[in-house]
Amino acid sequence: MSFTPSTENLIKALQLMPGIGLRSAQRLALHLLERAPEEARNLSVALETALAAVKKCPTCRTLTESDQCDICASPEREEATICVVISDADKEGLELSGHFKGRYFVLHGALSPIDGIGPEQLGIWQLIDLISAQDSKVTEVLLALDDQMESDATAYFISEQLKKGSIACSRVRFAQFKSGSLDKADSRVIADALANKQTIGFEHD
Amino acid sequence: MSFTPSTENLIKALQLMPGIGLRSAQRLALHLLERAPEEARNLSVALETALAAVKKCPTCRTLTESDQCDICASPEREEATICVVISDADKEGLELSGHFKGRYFVLHGALSPIDGIGPEQLGIWQLIDLISAQDSKVTEVLLALDDQMESDATAYFISEQLKKGSIACSRVRFAQFKSGSLDKADSRVIADALANKQTIGFEHD
Repeated sequence: MSFTPSTENLIKALQLMPGIGLRSAQRLALHLLERAPEEARNLSVALETALAAVKKCPTCRTLTESDQCDICASPEREEATICVVISDADKEGLELSGHFKGRYFVLHGALSPIDGIGPEQLGIWQLIDLISAQDSKVTEVLLALDDQMESDATAYFISEQLKKGSIACSRVRFAQFKSGSLDKADSRVIADALANKQTIGFEHD
Repeated sequence: MSFTPSTENLIKALQLMPGIGLRSAQRLALHLLERAPEEARNLSVALETALAAVKKCPTCRTLTESDQCDICASPEREEATICVVISDADKEGLELSGHFKGRYFVLHGALSPIDGIGPEQLGIWQLIDLISAQDSKVTEVLLALDDQMESDATAYFISEQLKKGSIACSRVRFAQFKSGSLDKADSRVIADALANKQTIGFEHD
């Protein structure tokens, strides 16, 4: 199939999104151009607006539109525990359960050297600096990462870095959990997982 | 789950696209904002560019970036037969087979009063004007629409309008065909369907 150059270009741009193959991208592009130019305009504006407004919280990398995210800004949240997650979606899933009272750190991905994703891209040095700062009150790091190979490598990498300090580092495991689907787990599963965290690496004595 | 206002807005805009539910829209929005701002910018620009460049051919409503589409501009194509299709994708599917030598008319949808899609939105009056113009060379209309209920209603409506003139009107049926998937049919299926068209409505004697 061959469409006009701008249509082909739009198909390519849509196809870069995860889970959208060539056929879906063609269908979406034609839908937008043939039947829904208003939706297309709306989507373009929504993208531009979100790109301009949404940034990462300078402390924990949660997506926010303020200078600091709600959780970092809240005096109610415990400062001793940081829960490290792969995506904002996982943080939201944990928040829905209401069982975690500490703070978060969002990696926005997992280590994947082949895709050029190293510790720098995930803010891991920022996490280490945050934990080891002179005035840091952090005593425990929970790694609430899923069971994907990249996530395991990321958990190992972070726990190795934390060996140098005196921070308890644990892995929190949710059965059948894949990053992005934590809101489907019921609140009890999350409570159990948080209670049964598995200590890894150096333990604070 | 609750995300920032602009993120929620982007999720809503993505969710308007066919086949994209809430969960997919959330995953796409977070992917774009967390990991792929360049892709998001690229998509926004591709949308704007396509919206500005792509228009409907004034004669046959095919998507084009020129004043007239390639087929309408070609002196090679027979002017006696117009093949009416629901989408540009169907026209492309028929073109791939190479069996149709006439011209097209693209409806960009099917009648669906509940969605506000009437003959005006599909350019059906434009099609009738085109066929009944003083200098028109059209003697036959092929309705290559799929078997969806709305497509049947559209075929019936067009054939009723053509009764007033002296134009042969036939329905071309492709087994298992749904608008947008014609490129998957092999060329022989298309040739057979074109050869076995079913005359409907008024016949020219």
